[in-house]
Amino acid sequence: MNVERLKRRFNKMAEIGATERGGVQRLALSDLDKEARDLWMKWAREANFNVRFDDFGNMYARLNGRFPEKRPIVLGSHLDSVPQGGRFDGTLGVLVGFEIMESLKERELELQHPVEVAVFSNEEGARFPTPMLGSGAITGVFTKQHVYDMKDNNELRFEDELKRIGYQGEETNRLKQVEAFIELHIEQGPVLESRTIPVGVVKGIQGLSWHQVQFSGESDHAGTTPLDHRKDPLLSAVRAVYRINSWVNSLNDETLVTFGKFHTMPGTINVIPSEVTFSMDIRHPDRSTLLNRVEVAKRLVREIALEDDTLSLCEDLSFMPPVDFDHSLIETLKESCGHQGIEYLELFSGAGHDAMYLNRLGRTVMVFTPSTGGKSHCEEEETSWEDIKLASAAMEQTVAKLSLS
Amino acid sequence: MNVERLKRRFNKMAEIGATERGGVQRLALSDLDKEARDLWMKWAREANFNVRFDDFGNMYARLNGRFPEKRPIVLGSHLDSVPQGGRFDGTLGVLVGFEIMESLKERELELQHPVEVAVFSNEEGARFPTPMLGSGAITGVFTKQHVYDMKDNNELRFEDELKRIGYQGEETNRLKQVEAFIELHIEQGPVLESRTIPVGVVKGIQGLSWHQVQFSGESDHAGTTPLDHRKDPLLSAVRAVYRINSWVNSLNDETLVTFGKFHTMPGTINVIPSEVTFSMDIRHPDRSTLLNRVEVAKRLVREIALEDDTLSLCEDLSFMPPVDFDHSLIETLKESCGHQGIEYLELFSGAGHDAMYLNRLGRTVMVFTPSTGGKSHCEEEETSWEDIKLASAAMEQTVAKLSLS
Ligand SMILES: NC(=O)NCCC(=O)O
Ligand SMILES: NC(=O)NCCC(=O)O
Repeated sequence: MNVERLKRRFNKMAEIGATERGGVQRLALSDLDKEARDLWMKWAREANFNVRFDDFGNMYARLNGRFPEKRPIVLGSHLDSVPQGGRFDGTLGVLVGFEIMESLKERELELQHPVEVAVFSNEEGARFPTPMLGSGAITGVFTKQHVYDMKDNNELRFEDELKRIGYQGEETNRLKQVEAFIELHIEQGPVLESRTIPVGVVKGIQGLSWHQVQFSGESDHAGTTPLDHRKDPLLSAVRAVYRINSWVNSLNDETLVTFGKFHTMPGTINVIPSEVTFSMDIRHPDRSTLLNRVEVAKRLVREIALEDDTLSLCEDLSFMPPVDFDHSLIETLKESCGHQGIEYLELFSGAGHDAMYLNRLGRTVMVFTPSTGGKSHCEEEETSWEDIKLASAAMEQTVAKLSLS
Repeated sequence: MNVERLKRRFNKMAEIGATERGGVQRLALSDLDKEARDLWMKWAREANFNVRFDDFGNMYARLNGRFPEKRPIVLGSHLDSVPQGGRFDGTLGVLVGFEIMESLKERELELQHPVEVAVFSNEEGARFPTPMLGSGAITGVFTKQHVYDMKDNNELRFEDELKRIGYQGEETNRLKQVEAFIELHIEQGPVLESRTIPVGVVKGIQGLSWHQVQFSGESDHAGTTPLDHRKDPLLSAVRAVYRINSWVNSLNDETLVTFGKFHTMPGTINVIPSEVTFSMDIRHPDRSTLLNRVEVAKRLVREIALEDDTLSLCEDLSFMPPVDFDHSLIETLKESCGHQGIEYLELFSGAGHDAMYLNRLGRTVMVFTPSTGGKSHCEEEETSWEDIKLASAAMEQTVAKLSLS
């Protein structure tokens, strides 16, 4: 593979939506997302790959090989980002996949399986509030109507925005059964770096559950309403966050909880809020434990509302059960590392990825590169080119092996 | 006075920015504010009053009387509202003042002092985040540059918006020394209603202090960052709100604290926030006690940041010291009630009002009408026309007495 070409493309892509402090902001189906898509499509056409996009805007570049009717080996990830995100998250997997496919083509190997690179829409869930929306849509997790009707914060619909940027394709273009799906991604956590190991062989992904919690009380004047006459939903909300967080801490296990969004209505200095809304992201590697954590968190919310005489509502936004990757692919990947003397670590992923849903179309595995400082979903996100080279080499050998046999 | 005409005008004004649930939303210097101003100006011209507006958009309608050079008796309040506010707050005082002046004119009394009705800009502080901005500007509380450069949430400047709606007038049009300023307003609290007394004679206004508190931490991925590796500013912010509120409760005195705005940055479900900002409104009738409450609240914020290893910042937005109204005016108002057999209660105001700054231009007093359910700054805001009639009658007699002597 040509690492210089990969780097060049990577840097070019990082210019689209570049932020002041070295990150990118490229929300799904925005003008910048369109620009990134256009650039990728241009590269794919220049490389003479067959390109297409489906009815959710998922894009594919394909190398047919000798038997176009066989199930493809698919590589890929996403090009969208969170607000003030990093330039590696998603993009790296898309471009490493692309480079591997281009290098397979240049080596003129006799491919027994078609190879494809896929770019999935709205992986982050940052704009349309469900992560892995494009990959979930083609694997039957979400209905087409549900996806099309999803709205962003400005009430813009997924379908309308998809049309607007010119990436609404045919349903028949969707990815169907795959021979294998391999996604390279930065780890987005501290494990590989802390053990100075360059490559992660990912065994599976923990489960995640997303919720929107709302407390309602009584809006009133800040200067004239005695404290004991108030029904202030903000006080309920801060107590709920505090109590849930303390409870999760006291478990002292792998449970994670995060409150990323939080806001008051009407949001005026001298008005006691009428409504407070916050998001709750709960994770655990074990399905039934995760379900228990969600249940207890919801109970704590209800308890606080009862104590405070406010009203609470806990809406379920997404539930993504934990996933185990394919044993044979894990073994092949480990062998590829072994052959090249590349040190690797088997680990679980804390973050959801398109591979989480793609495993419904065939066997799936992921490769991780280390995250500097363990940081991700922020502008400081970084991974070294030394490590990228090693992970890509392991992945390339695996892809070659799968596509030649 | 003609109560039917007053009601008609009141209902007409309430149509401008009417909300679904019976309130109004008419933010300062918005298109709707312009519409309300235009309507009021039209009425003032139709009544043959002299009209003018000053360089902050404060509007005045004037009845000269025999001695136009004498200091005026000024009545008035504001026409702007908070988001999803009530239709009485401010507007009632403006229109009752207008009706009293019109009735003085119709009675063809020999006025010894000019009478004016004033409408002050941005009283609520809901759009440009300083309350009583127009009245503070003409009384030397704020410099012209400070007011002109104030920005709303969309970075729009006060001066630009004032120009845009066509209400940037001459500096020479400002109100100068006054013989008396009388502001009628709904109480916005529960006191009058709970004692079923129709009229409040207001002795003064408690002090208020506004702040913006910010906690910063480290943004990171919700799924991959172990709880003990996080610097989550949201957890600091909820603890700060909880601790300050508990402390104020434990004082068990007249101190009030309210957190009306609260939001996270970047505000994404699966991202630990980098920054959390909330507003803090602290009030107390005694100046030095208020200063002490502010100091302790700020210390609690700093303590939490230290405990959590996050960063905190507490910005002062506005400080409005408590105000005592004029004894002679309070007496005259009480006598006017007495003469007409109107029951009244002397009380303090929990809310800031333009009268708070107008008292720098001459003696000042306020008249309150009861608030149904004690509610204000919300769409349910209500006050009965029976009570409005009584308060207006007391006020009219006071104005007549002052302007004839
Ligand atoms: N990789 C990634 O950040 N995906 C979004 C879903 C999640 O929050 O885990
Ligand atoms: N009357 C009124 O609500 N004025 C705004 C300033 C305050 O919050 O007290």
